[in-house]
Amino acid sequence: MTEQEFLQELKEINLINQASTVLNWDSSTGMPDKAAEDRGEVESYLAGLAFEKSVGPKIKEAVEYFSDEEHKKELSEVGLAAFELVKEDYELNNAVPADLMRDFSRATSKAYSAWHKARSASDFSLYRDELAENIRIVKELLPYWKKDEATDYDVLLNKYEPKMTSEKLDKVFDQVRDGIMEIREVLAKEGTEPNTDFLNRKMTEEQQRKFVKQVVADLGFDFTRGRLDNTVHPYMTGINNNDIRITTRWDEEFFPAGVFGVIHEAGHGMYEQNIDSKYAYTPALSGTSMGIHESQSLFNEIIIGSNREFWKKQYPFFQECAEGTFDDISFDDFYDSLKKTQASLIRVDADTLTYVLHIIIRYEIEKMIINEDINIDDLPQIWNDKYEEYLGIRPDNDADGILQDVHWSGADFGYFPSYALGYMYAAQLHNAMKNDIDVDGVLASDDYSPIRKWSTEHIHQYGASRKPNQLIMDATGEELNPQYLLDYLKEIYYSVYKVK
Amino acid sequence: MTEQEFLQELKEINLINQASTVLNWDSSTGMPDKAAEDRGEVESYLAGLAFEKSVGPKIKEAVEYFSDEEHKKELSEVGLAAFELVKEDYELNNAVPADLMRDFSRATSKAYSAWHKARSASDFSLYRDELAENIRIVKELLPYWKKDEATDYDVLLNKYEPKMTSEKLDKVFDQVRDGIMEIREVLAKEGTEPNTDFLNRKMTEEQQRKFVKQVVADLGFDFTRGRLDNTVHPYMTGINNNDIRITTRWDEEFFPAGVFGVIHEAGHGMYEQNIDSKYAYTPALSGTSMGIHESQSLFNEIIIGSNREFWKKQYPFFQECAEGTFDDISFDDFYDSLKKTQASLIRVDADTLTYVLHIIIRYEIEKMIINEDINIDDLPQIWNDKYEEYLGIRPDNDADGILQDVHWSGADFGYFPSYALGYMYAAQLHNAMKNDIDVDGVLASDDYSPIRKWSTEHIHQYGASRKPNQLIMDATGEELNPQYLLDYLKEIYYSVYKVK
Repeated sequence: MTEQEFLQELKEINLINQASTVLNWDSSTGMPDKAAEDRGEVESYLAGLAFEKSVGPKIKEAVEYFSDEEHKKELSEVGLAAFELVKEDYELNNAVPADLMRDFSRATSKAYSAWHKARSASDFSLYRDELAENIRIVKELLPYWKKDEATDYDVLLNKYEPKMTSEKLDKVFDQVRDGIMEIREVLAKEGTEPNTDFLNRKMTEEQQRKFVKQVVADLGFDFTRGRLDNTVHPYMTGINNNDIRITTRWDEEFFPAGVFGVIHEAGHGMYEQNIDSKYAYTPALSGTSMGIHESQSLFNEIIIGSNREFWKKQYPFFQECAEGTFDDISFDDFYDSLKKTQASLIRVDADTLTYVLHIIIRYEIEKMIINEDINIDDLPQIWNDKYEEYLGIRPDNDADGILQDVHWSGADFGYFPSYALGYMYAAQLHNAMKNDIDVDGVLASDDYSPIRKWSTEHIHQYGASRKPNQLIMDATGEELNPQYLLDYLKEIYYSVYKVK
Repeated sequence: MTEQEFLQELKEINLINQASTVLNWDSSTGMPDKAAEDRGEVESYLAGLAFEKSVGPKIKEAVEYFSDEEHKKELSEVGLAAFELVKEDYELNNAVPADLMRDFSRATSKAYSAWHKARSASDFSLYRDELAENIRIVKELLPYWKKDEATDYDVLLNKYEPKMTSEKLDKVFDQVRDGIMEIREVLAKEGTEPNTDFLNRKMTEEQQRKFVKQVVADLGFDFTRGRLDNTVHPYMTGINNNDIRITTRWDEEFFPAGVFGVIHEAGHGMYEQNIDSKYAYTPALSGTSMGIHESQSLFNEIIIGSNREFWKKQYPFFQECAEGTFDDISFDDFYDSLKKTQASLIRVDADTLTYVLHIIIRYEIEKMIINEDINIDDLPQIWNDKYEEYLGIRPDNDADGILQDVHWSGADFGYFPSYALGYMYAAQLHNAMKNDIDVDGVLASDDYSPIRKWSTEHIHQYGASRKPNQLIMDATGEELNPQYLLDYLKEIYYSVYKVK
């Protein structure tokens, strides 16, 4: 087995996956309605081809051969990075008995349908059994996935954020939760709520698109290597680093949804566009974890998107794109309106201050589900109690409560913390960046490239060749520290709410 | 080998081809510019997978097994239709030595680049050697492809239009050429040219799209199983019969280009949408020949698109879509303007009367190239002489002459006649349709479905399970007869040009 043979096999798997990614993008951006059934057949055939190869004889041989420390020395830096990722994946795929994988796949597919129905009916009982079955199978899978993690939940957490522990997260989340709740108290007591009436003024899709396409191009999203389309559920998908596609939905009566949505997805996109091309056709040509990926999208959305200098510079162009609709709104009123905070029941509608509380609630419940023998029937109430405790509001139905998220129907326990990690990483990276660059000055200028270059140098270029903890340590000089997020939120919100 | 195994292998080939078709569509409708290189790798990998399977052991076994007349009886109607097509293809792919196929592929790829450069420079000499090499290799391939065709050219002709002969075409084309030249003479002597000044009035892309999307939906193009996108070179591509994509380019200063372009492509699309789904995942789920395919697109474009009742019905809606731009133009003036005829040098810009002459010129030259030992250096002059003889105008450079078409650079000799066959089939089918349906009456009504249903019943549903000559015979009761085209052209143009 030579490195070249190994990389050739990876390339073939990658080429099939590139095809699948285009098909998947196509199916959500305008594929004719009635093409769905056939498309399902094509996608599952290609996924099967790629999976067969990924656990096939060539990859098996490569894993065995290069696991030998002497043979490993034959690998280049790229080959080694690819090998480590392939090995992790191969071991995960091969540890589990095929029967159990099939049960898992069947259970999640059933649970997804049940969740869909239950959410429409706002009735947790319609989903209860399927969720229980998902949990049962995940617990059966855990021993196969487990390496040296301290708790069962850590095993799941590490699938999305390698090397993160719940011991660490417990401390971090305690600190963030207390900090955010304190900020909210101060704002409630001493703050002045900004006016947001005008946010519902009509801004057409075309006007919004004109504005935000220019903004994300300014930020560094390269449209010669990417595109923007409309979809129902916005996302970023990377076919390869020269073909990065972001999608959005527009709300003509509430422009921030589309505008911040595109700025967010463009952050994901810039990450993938700027991965070093030397990793092409290997699994290293992708983000290293969900948490780091979210850090890049949220850097765009909450760090840049909350920055007064950024908006001061962009507001005249925004007004121009809106063709008069906001001409009577002063810059200060406009900026302040973007940062109003208010407790809400639905995670995806949450503002940047309260968002992390939604995640912490899910994290705490997930740990109970996985590490403890919780009664499934108690979940809705546990959920509602936590919302009351942390956010001061209580869902009065399951759709606005425990049924709002799709994740558990896919048995994706351990995924939620990534969102909060993204917030904290983004703020920590921002702080480190400020040591090298006058970020406010750059955002007040015509040339944002120093920011993009800093992120590329410290994060983007490495793709999945480095683990999240190493990236954060190298880029910021310390491990995950949530204080930077709290400081940033305090600064922004106290200023907007005129807290002395 | 069972029928089921055979069909399963065809299905897998088909699923790969569906993926390739989507990728190909994507690459011409908005793929980021810089994604082209990687995309080429993906497409060629998938094409390789499909090709390997199509000449692989399972197909070989099926071809051998079901070639036995007793075994053939084990096939259902669908299996048999698929088998006949697979066998033809397999024999064509397997007869030729692999080396020669590689030479062919290399030569055409080189010739394509040379043609591109030569056309830009309008200099045939830059392409002469590569064209000569294409011709040489095709002549080397001919013995492998040949079955019982009368001339070498017939072998090539049959790749695109099975069972057609040049003996037949010679007669047909003589009749059509003489007929069209006679019509042109009469128009020149006795006709009154319609006014076309207003055709260049600006009609925005959006206005044109609104009009023509409604028109093709009325004609029967099903947008729940298809879509319309923008592209540089318009085409129709069928992923499967539930996912048919047509593309167009718009000219805001000359609406007929986009409008008739979409009507044309929708004809191709309706053909594929209406193939019986029982042929799904087999090669029978596609058009049976280029000629029949063109007959369906041209039925839309020149039969319906030249029909006075059709336009009388649509004109108020057209005026509405144009938002006042054509309000001062009477219906008669509008309709007449669409049918102005004028000799032109470029085939793709030709009008419906002169178009077939362009094809006949190419047909005659192709026969000389393939059946005779013509001197390549004489080709530009032969081309120009024929334009002068048949159309009365002479190209004064190679770009407007022999270099205008891409086909020969791909060694696609024998393809051009399909375009003319499409014209003649369309008119012949129209004549047969009129025996069953009051076509003018239908086009004056709100419900065009009887026309679409007739075409589906007689042509569309069969896909590639029947040969062109059989379809035409069954649908019209006679073999190809060019008189119907001449009669139709005469009727339309004499009326527009007020010939008594």
